[in-house]
Amino acid sequence: DTNSLSVPPGLGDTARASVSWDGTYSGLLPCADCSGIQTTITLKPDGTYIEITEYVGKPNARYINEGRFTWKVNGRDIVLSNGEQYMVGEGQLFRLDQAGNRVVGSLANHYVLKKI
Amino acid sequence: DTNSLSVPPGLGDTARASVSWDGTYSGLLPCADCSGIQTTITLKPDGTYIEITEYVGKPNARYINEGRFTWKVNGRDIVLSNGEQYMVGEGQLFRLDQAGNRVVGSLANHYVLKKI
Amino acid sequence: DTNSLSVPPGLGDTARASVSWDGTYSGLLPCADCSGIQTTITLKPDGTYIEITEYVGKPNARYINEGRFTWKVNGRDIVLSNGEQYMVGEGQLFRLDQAGNRVVGSLANHYVLKKI
Amino acid sequence: DTNSLSVPPGLGDTARASVSWDGTYSGLLPCADCSGIQTTITLKPDGTYIEITEYVGKPNARYINEGRFTWKVNGRDIVLSNGEQYMVGEGQLFRLDQAGNRVVGSLANHYVLKKI
Repeated sequence: DTNSLSVPPGLGDTARASVSWDGTYSGLLPCADCSGIQTTITLKPDGTYIEITEYVGKPNARYINEGRFTWKVNGRDIVLSNGEQYMVGEGQLFRLDQAGNRVVGSLANHYVLKKI
Repeated sequence: DTNSLSVPPGLGDTARASVSWDGTYSGLLPCADCSGIQTTITLKPDGTYIEITEYVGKPNARYINEGRFTWKVNGRDIVLSNGEQYMVGEGQLFRLDQAGNRVVGSLANHYVLKKI
Repeated sequence: DTNSLSVPPGLGDTARASVSWDGTYSGLLPCADCSGIQTTITLKPDGTYIEITEYVGKPNARYINEGRFTWKVNGRDIVLSNGEQYMVGEGQLFRLDQAGNRVVGSLANHYVLKKI
Repeated sequence: DTNSLSVPPGLGDTARASVSWDGTYSGLLPCADCSGIQTTITLKPDGTYIEITEYVGKPNARYINEGRFTWKVNGRDIVLSNGEQYMVGEGQLFRLDQAGNRVVGSLANHYVLKKI
């Protein structure tokens, strides 16, 4: 397992060590003033990512962010260069709030990107 | 009807003319990275507004925006100084997207503030 | 002149008609909380653009926005899909404020991208 | 000195301990698409703040943010609830970038708020 080579000791059970996290995830995230933010994130084994976002109803604009992601000490969550945080699960990423917590409330199940 | 005094001719059936739009509206709007944006807008007869927003899960921050709103030529929608657009209905405001259109999709019914 | 073919009558002296505006422009724009926003915009004859922005001091993040630009009725200013506005001059673009006006003040000469 | 009561041991020489930091600071910060952001911050002894921002050239909008600020472990920098960071000096606040570093470059001396 290539991923586990760079996993610090004691993190054997974390997502970082046990999940095949590299790959591409996609989903429609809630938006404050649009019908949704189509979000696609590719996590690469070298610690870089590409995030593509498109706003539903605005077909003429596409946003691409290239950067690096880092694992938080819990070995479960990642932080993108653009400040976004995600919890890494098997086959999915959960968008976290700015404090690094899971989003709750009636729309809670909308903050997930599925591996494609 | 005080409101209708400043209504241009031919707009008699518009929200601007026929709705008692002044007052305070409140609701929980969707958020890209939080559990919701508690939004309260007070529209005043003199064309000014106060908008108070709080992000659910962040109890220590409150944002207040004071500005002016203008009616679009359709006599139905307003634009706040901060760029936000709302459609004015009887007893409610509907948050519009940046192009001035109604938000659609599975969360469409979440983009409304109710008069309080 | 390919550009002038799509220029409405009466705009013969405008930037849209008389300036060779297609090409790539670059410059360092002021930033509220960083040492500058390195901005590169490519305007294409087909009305699409690519804007690449990097924040000085954050080497690990790059933002790319692909969209369309439209000319304002003055035939001099353009609006990008992302809402940014620029005045088109010979060999340069001037970043405008949200109201479409030139930026003034002591930093006014910093809001320009030069053709490269 | 009321401030020093809550200062952890070993921070005796820090801004937190030695500077009369409570009060109101004001200045004109650079803006990506406007002639400046008139910024006024009041730091209160109880750890709350009020920040008022106005965008030059947009007289009809005023933004007020009420929140709490926390001291970083260096005892010199503060982080506002809205994510902004400032270095605290005698009679002035220096706006920091998102990584918590001083802004450098040709506009470096524009990232300061003076006590009023």
